[in-house]
Amino acid sequence: MSERLFYHLDESEMPDAWYNIQADFTDPMHPPLHPGTGQPIAAADMGPLFPQALIEQEMSQERWISIPGEVVDIYRLWRPAPLIRARALEKALDTPARIYFKYEGVSPTGSHKPNSAVAQAYYNKKEGVRRITTETGAGQWGSSLAFACNHFGLECLIYMVKVSYNQKPYRKNMMELFGARVVASPSTETDAGRKILSETPDSPGSLGIAISEAVEMAVKDEHTKYSLGSVLNFVVLHQTIIGLETEKQLALAGEKPDVLLASFGGGSNFGGFVLPFVNRKIKGESMRIVAVEPAACPTLTRGVFAYDFGDAIGMTPLMPMHTLGHDFIPSPIHAGGLRYHGAAPIISHALNQNLIEAVALKQNDCFASAALFAKVQGIIPAPESTHAVHGAMREALRCREEGKSEVIVFNLSGHGHLDMSAYDAFLQGKLGDGEMSDAELQKNLAAVRKI
Amino acid sequence: MSERLFYHLDESEMPDAWYNIQADFTDPMHPPLHPGTGQPIAAADMGPLFPQALIEQEMSQERWISIPGEVVDIYRLWRPAPLIRARALEKALDTPARIYFKYEGVSPTGSHKPNSAVAQAYYNKKEGVRRITTETGAGQWGSSLAFACNHFGLECLIYMVKVSYNQKPYRKNMMELFGARVVASPSTETDAGRKILSETPDSPGSLGIAISEAVEMAVKDEHTKYSLGSVLNFVVLHQTIIGLETEKQLALAGEKPDVLLASFGGGSNFGGFVLPFVNRKIKGESMRIVAVEPAACPTLTRGVFAYDFGDAIGMTPLMPMHTLGHDFIPSPIHAGGLRYHGAAPIISHALNQNLIEAVALKQNDCFASAALFAKVQGIIPAPESTHAVHGAMREALRCREEGKSEVIVFNLSGHGHLDMSAYDAFLQGKLGDGEMSDAELQKNLAAVRKI
Repeated sequence: MSERLFYHLDESEMPDAWYNIQADFTDPMHPPLHPGTGQPIAAADMGPLFPQALIEQEMSQERWISIPGEVVDIYRLWRPAPLIRARALEKALDTPARIYFKYEGVSPTGSHKPNSAVAQAYYNKKEGVRRITTETGAGQWGSSLAFACNHFGLECLIYMVKVSYNQKPYRKNMMELFGARVVASPSTETDAGRKILSETPDSPGSLGIAISEAVEMAVKDEHTKYSLGSVLNFVVLHQTIIGLETEKQLALAGEKPDVLLASFGGGSNFGGFVLPFVNRKIKGESMRIVAVEPAACPTLTRGVFAYDFGDAIGMTPLMPMHTLGHDFIPSPIHAGGLRYHGAAPIISHALNQNLIEAVALKQNDCFASAALFAKVQGIIPAPESTHAVHGAMREALRCREEGKSEVIVFNLSGHGHLDMSAYDAFLQGKLGDGEMSDAELQKNLAAVRKI
Repeated sequence: MSERLFYHLDESEMPDAWYNIQADFTDPMHPPLHPGTGQPIAAADMGPLFPQALIEQEMSQERWISIPGEVVDIYRLWRPAPLIRARALEKALDTPARIYFKYEGVSPTGSHKPNSAVAQAYYNKKEGVRRITTETGAGQWGSSLAFACNHFGLECLIYMVKVSYNQKPYRKNMMELFGARVVASPSTETDAGRKILSETPDSPGSLGIAISEAVEMAVKDEHTKYSLGSVLNFVVLHQTIIGLETEKQLALAGEKPDVLLASFGGGSNFGGFVLPFVNRKIKGESMRIVAVEPAACPTLTRGVFAYDFGDAIGMTPLMPMHTLGHDFIPSPIHAGGLRYHGAAPIISHALNQNLIEAVALKQNDCFASAALFAKVQGIIPAPESTHAVHGAMREALRCREEGKSEVIVFNLSGHGHLDMSAYDAFLQGKLGDGEMSDAELQKNLAAVRKI
C-alpha cells in the first residue's frame, strides 16, 4: 500500500555509454602475455577471433565508450531493468537493514548475458562478419548470443557441452527458437572434437573442449568470428550498464549503499554491477563491495594471482588473474556459470588493490536462502544468483545482530525458471557442497606461474 | 532511442477495487442450477467448497469490490504489470497498426493466475480455513495457488494429472518450492482415485479425475476448502485488475483501442482483460473485443449455449455457458490451459449480448506467430498466450492490407519458460492442430441441454 518497492528508470534515463574503469585505476593492470613469446599480446594477435572494435575496447583506456544506437534499440526491449526494494525479505529476516536488488532476469533469456551478447553481435555485423561461434555449458550465454545474432541477421553456431545438451534440452530449445544451430560437443565437425571422440567415444564434453571447437571454426573461416561471455575487459565493460542504472536508481531512492554484492564466476555480472561503485571508492567514498563465489570454485578466496590460461587446454593468452589452475575441474554444482577456474583480470586487479573483497559460500546454504527469497519475494533465483542472495541475507542478519540499518544492494543476475531441477535436488536433500580440499588446491596450483 | 515502449503505472495507481460487470449487463445472467432439483443454486449449496466471502462475490451485483490491503500487499510484488508497445513487431509486420500488449508473465509463477489465487487464499485464511485443495493440469494454476497459500500460511494440496506430473516435473518442483504437497492423480488417497485405479491401474489421469479428488478432500474435512482457477464469476472478477490497469495505461499512452484480444480457455484471462472495456462498449463506445480460442477446443465458435456441467464427470452445478459437451476430451495441444469444454458463464453472456466476438485458430499457426514474436520482442509466450499473439498479428496484417492504423491491444497472459518442449515440437514439425470434426462435435453435444 504504502512505501515504494519498484524503482523504474524512465527509458530516456538509460545510460548512453559504458564505463571503463581502466581510466580510473591508480595502478595499471598487468598485460596479457603471448604464451609463445612471453611478450604482451598485440591487437593483431586477437584479429582472427574478434572484430576490431572489440579489440580496441579490450585495450581502451577511455573512461566512457558510447553505446551504439542499434544496441540501445535492442536493450530497450527490457532495459532499464528494475531496482526493487526487498521489503518482504527484510520483514522475513526481521532486519533493520534496507535491502535492494537489481533484477536482470527481465531480459529475453532471463539473465544479464544479453547485455554483452547484443553489443558483440552488433560489432561483428558492422565489420562484415557472417557467423559467430561460441561455447555454452548450461546455456545462459549460448541462448543470449543466439538472441543477439538473430537480431542482426548473423548465423550463430553454438557448441554445447554434451552432458548439458542431453540433460537440459530447454536451453537448447531456446537457442534453436532464436535461430541458432546447436551442436553437442565434442562433435565430429572439428579436428578438436574428432580427436577427443577417437580417444573417448563417450566423452560427456567440457567447456574446455567446446571452446576448442568454437575457436577452431572461427580460425578456419574468414567470415566467422568467436564470441566469449565473460572474463574479457570488453565483456565486463558492456555489463557496466547494470551498475550505471543502479547508481541512478539508488539516487532515486535517496540511498547510499553500504554493502554491494554480486555472484562471482568469470566476473561479468559482478564487474558490470560493481565497477561504477568501485570508481566511487577509488575517489574516496566508503562502502564494502563483495564478490560471492561458490565454495566449490573459490577462485578469489583460495586461488593465487598468476599468469594462467583462460581456457582449460591452454589455447588462450596468459591472463593475469586469480586462478585455481587451468586444469581444475570444479564439482558439478548447479551454478554452472560460476564453475570457472579463473577470474576477469579487471576484477583480480580490483581485488589486488583492496577495492573489493570476496567470500565463498556453500551450495546448500545458497539454495536455502534462495528458497526463502522465492517464497517471500516471488522471484526464483538462478542457481548462480543464489550466491548473491545468500551473501546479502548474511549481511542483513549481521545488521540485525549489530542493530545497524545499513543499505544492502545486490544483483539478482537471473531467474531460475530453466533450472527448477536444481531446486528439486535441494528440496530432496540431494545437493552436495563440493568444497575443495587443500591437497586438491595445491595440486592444481603447482603448474601455475605466480606474478 | 526515441519513442516510448514501456508504460509502467506508478505503484500508487494500482486499482483498489475489482470490477464486477454483472452490475452493468443490461440483461441479467441465467443462474446456475442444482442438478438434482433443477432450481437455481443457493449460497448454502456452495458452503462446503468455498468460503463465504467468495460465495458472496460469486453472486454479487455490486459494481466495485474493494481489494483487501493484504491482497494488495502481495500483488505489489509484481503489479502493476507493464503495458508494452510492440514496436519491433510492428516493424517486422510492416503494419500501420499500433500494437500494445499487457504482460502478465512478470508474476511469480509467470502468468495471470496468481491474481485470483492470492485473493482466494486470503479469503480462505480469513475464515479460518487451514488447507486448500485444487487440481492442476500443466501446473500454471497449481503453482499460483501454492505461491498464494505459502504467503498466508495455508496448507496447499494439489492433485496434478499424472501424465503431467511425470512429464512436466518443473512445475511440480515450483509448487513444492512454494511449500505445496503435490499428488499424482489418480491417487490412492481418495475414494475417487482408488475407484479409477482399481478399474484402470495405469490411468494417465485427467482434469476431471483430479477435480473429483480435490473436491472429495474438501468435502470430507471441515478445515479444508476447494479452489478453482477459472470459469467462476469471482475468479474472473479478481482478474479484472488486468483490464483496469490496461485502461489507465492506454490513457497514459493517449490511445483508444480499436481491437482487444486475449486467449480463451475457461475465460479468466480473457474476462479479466476485457470486461472493463466491455462495460465501455455497453455504454456506447465502439471497439471490437475478440476471444481467441484453439481450433482443437472451439467452445465459443462451435459449441452451443446450454446448461452443462462444469466438470467432466457431472459433480458441479449446471452452468449456463457455451459448451462442447462435458465429456469432450480435446486433443492434447500444448496450450493445456485452453483445453476446457465450457466457458465462464459471464463470458458466454457477453457473447450472447453481442458484446464480444470469437475466433478459433490452429496450434501451428499460433506457434509460428509466437516464434516471430519471441525473436523480435524477446519474450517467449506461453502456449496458451500464443493464441492472443497470433490473433493480434492477424489483425495487424489486416490493417496493413486495409491501410488502417488501428490500435490493437492484447493480453500476453504468460511466458513459456516452462514449456520450451512445445516450441521444440513446433520447430521439428511435430505439432498437430487437433481440429474437431463435425461428427465428433455432434456426438459430444447430444447429451447437452440447450437453453
